Amino acid sequence: MPYAQALTKAHAAFLTDLFPGDGCLLTPEEMNVFATDAGRKRAMPWAVVRPENREQAAELLRWADAERIPVVPRARATNQVGAVVPVHGGVVVSLLRMNQIIDVDERDFAAVLQPGVVTSDLQAACAEKRLFYPPDPASVKTSTVGGNISTCAGGLRAVKYGVTRDWVLGLEAVLPGGRVLSMGGRSHKDVVGLDLKRLFVGSAGKLGLITEVTVKLVPLPEASASVLAGFRDLASCMDGAQAVFRSGLLPSACEFMDGAVLAVTRMVGDVPVASDAQGALLFKVDGTREAVDAEVRRLTEALGTVQPLSVEVGAGEAEEAIWEVRRTISPASFLLRPDKLSEDLAVPRGRVAEMVESVHSIGREHGLPVLCYGHLGDGNIHSNILFDKSAESEEAKAHAVKDELFRLALRLGGTISGEHGTGLAKASFVPEQLSADELRIMADIKAVFDPHYIMNPGKGW
Amino acid sequence: MPYAQALTKAHAAFLTDLFPGDGCLLTPEEMNVFATDAGRKRAMPWAVVRPENREQAAELLRWADAERIPVVPRARATNQVGAVVPVHGGVVVSLLRMNQIIDVDERDFAAVLQPGVVTSDLQAACAEKRLFYPPDPASVKTSTVGGNISTCAGGLRAVKYGVTRDWVLGLEAVLPGGRVLSMGGRSHKDVVGLDLKRLFVGSAGKLGLITEVTVKLVPLPEASASVLAGFRDLASCMDGAQAVFRSGLLPSACEFMDGAVLAVTRMVGDVPVASDAQGALLFKVDGTREAVDAEVRRLTEALGTVQPLSVEVGAGEAEEAIWEVRRTISPASFLLRPDKLSEDLAVPRGRVAEMVESVHSIGREHGLPVLCYGHLGDGNIHSNILFDKSAESEEAKAHAVKDELFRLALRLGGTISGEHGTGLAKASFVPEQLSADELRIMADIKAVFDPHYIMNPGKGW
Repeated sequence: MPYAQALTKAHAAFLTDLFPGDGCLLTPEEMNVFATDAGRKRAMPWAVVRPENREQAAELLRWADAERIPVVPRARATNQVGAVVPVHGGVVVSLLRMNQIIDVDERDFAAVLQPGVVTSDLQAACAEKRLFYPPDPASVKTSTVGGNISTCAGGLRAVKYGVTRDWVLGLEAVLPGGRVLSMGGRSHKDVVGLDLKRLFVGSAGKLGLITEVTVKLVPLPEASASVLAGFRDLASCMDGAQAVFRSGLLPSACEFMDGAVLAVTRMVGDVPVASDAQGALLFKVDGTREAVDAEVRRLTEALGTVQPLSVEVGAGEAEEAIWEVRRTISPASFLLRPDKLSEDLAVPRGRVAEMVESVHSIGREHGLPVLCYGHLGDGNIHSNILFDKSAESEEAKAHAVKDELFRLALRLGGTISGEHGTGLAKASFVPEQLSADELRIMADIKAVFDPHYIMNPGKGW
Repeated sequence: MPYAQALTKAHAAFLTDLFPGDGCLLTPEEMNVFATDAGRKRAMPWAVVRPENREQAAELLRWADAERIPVVPRARATNQVGAVVPVHGGVVVSLLRMNQIIDVDERDFAAVLQPGVVTSDLQAACAEKRLFYPPDPASVKTSTVGGNISTCAGGLRAVKYGVTRDWVLGLEAVLPGGRVLSMGGRSHKDVVGLDLKRLFVGSAGKLGLITEVTVKLVPLPEASASVLAGFRDLASCMDGAQAVFRSGLLPSACEFMDGAVLAVTRMVGDVPVASDAQGALLFKVDGTREAVDAEVRRLTEALGTVQPLSVEVGAGEAEEAIWEVRRTISPASFLLRPDKLSEDLAVPRGRVAEMVESVHSIGREHGLPVLCYGHLGDGNIHSNILFDKSAESEEAKAHAVKDELFRLALRLGGTISGEHGTGLAKASFVPEQLSADELRIMADIKAVFDPHYIMNPGKGW
């Protein structure tokens, strides 16, 4: 049985009954904002609903499965790949009203919450009890824990602390047909059966609706400090990072900025990096105050062995200031061109230099500027391809550059997405990374949870 | 079509052809050792084969799937739950000849290896390049990385570094039918598609045969130190652990020993814990030399706030000595009774005191000594139930205690297995922890990989 083709009057009546008041939106004016996400592709849903509890979510999925109505879960929609655009129509489910922090437990070192909690709100609630939830995607102040789980969000601190997947202890999810599945719990270790909860992490809303989350916490590090160092060229940058890791340090963040990034950020303000630097590294260390002091010394000594052009240490109140350069990259980039494609290739860490050089060479061939920066410590480099939609053929060139970048990452043994997911934007490239066998297995596993393929369809796998 | 009932002459000819020489064992004398594991249950296989490469493994699984021959993967068989006992007969596949470390890469921070590599051998190869593979189950010097992946092995350092699951970047596996599935790779981040590789971690050999592994590495910590503290009672012990974590420290290990453990270890040697202590904590911290010094100071200060009866610091060459008490627990326990059941319940960390008290009370009710010790930092406490098989009804009592322990863990929101897996020993309890929906989903997912259920059958899910 194929999908329903539109929302009937009976369908609409069911939804307005289940989601009274503004819990259900049906007019184009109200639904407009739910037609798109940060990836800016658009498709209008047939309805938008805002459940407040698992019972509503379960009843919705019982009905949607029986009626073959596509269901697209959504929270803050900060993803850049069109992951929550309802390309087959259907019902968009906003989880933002399920936004309660149920418990932050300082003895269990666990927090229980609803999926619509903004990640930085969870972190603030944890910090009040001197606890720490480490995952920190760039969107941490706007995106939700449920959204982070659906995408397996990464972030700056992944070098030391891993990604969202590594912090999920338990999940409750509602499946098509209306079953409520409770997986895992507050135990930090559990090896009974297949690890279903972690299969949900990164599953992009294709298995079910997440209705409750349990995450692992650790003690809040007492202190942190950061070091920003400029280097004469890309090779020295890579040597600098290697020297730090070889000195036995595991920084929480190890960020990279190429020469093009330094040039464009200098156009908007002071950059505390030597003016002749063609690349920079930005490290963060955290721990007890004494350990942080010792690690900053060790880190600057290690960098010294590869002769950096400048080294700036930011500790205490001065720490945030040296991250300012990292934060200005995105706004500054628009000085070069009004439009951009943001890609998040990841490659084996030792191949980053080769990747960055190739990215620039591909950009030059097509006459477009490309900025490379990001999570060197994970081999996860953001490439911003800048273009001007209004200039003849630049948009087509940008997409040609993007396609070459995807192939480059795969040739280097990497992935077309380290953080963002594939959504609509990369759907056509998924079969170049995953084998036919892998894709068939993923489809068959999806069918175990969602036999009629109603969950977030049309996104490539 | 049900399983084959025995090995025909044609089957045996196929196997001896595919695995020439001593690659195939068919006599009871040769196969005897492959009938059991550290759990000591027994069932004779029909044949044992020892593949040397993926091609042999793939051909084996093509044939076994067609012939409906059960296949039981096995390495060092250190598991304590009968996880690799061939209860339906069939072919036991020893992976110990696939034991090459293919690459340890200090720029990628990744290692590629075959599944039969002993975990401590991998760690030694990493240490030569100042790299670190943290998972450290108690069996680290005998068990293999492939076995650790199949069980999602934990260990002492899980408090800071997580478990085996958190370190697997890529897997190659052969599936029933002979397909070779390559999942993930050397990229530290990858969010394309469902995370199939991590679904294999902890899957107990029920999805396929792992033939190659890629793991993540970090810099080798330069130094470590340990602290052993004695407390007047269980409550003070828990307060001591809480004080350490509240001071902002994340030790790599946080082990607990109860009064019964201290008493029995004193029967075999000096224990550097105050003689009137009724519980002890054993911490390890690691990092740069300066950070370790600072953290030991911080840790002992934090412990001081809850008035320990004794505090012993072991740094440098003296560090290993204070772990001696932890290592003597298992041999010393046999002074109490000649037989034991070793359980590995895990509960939310804040429920450990309640669990330990209840475990002792259950033991007393049945007149059997129980020792509690282990990974307090993860809420994963080992309970050794001691008994004498030759004494009337003690074995039955031990099993009654064990059953009550399982129910206790579940009542406290925990799990019947934090590390060991369920195997044969706990198969009947799996449905008390997992819901019927979860079990059905796991079975359906297994069927995606293994449609005829030939992989390690008879183990409960």
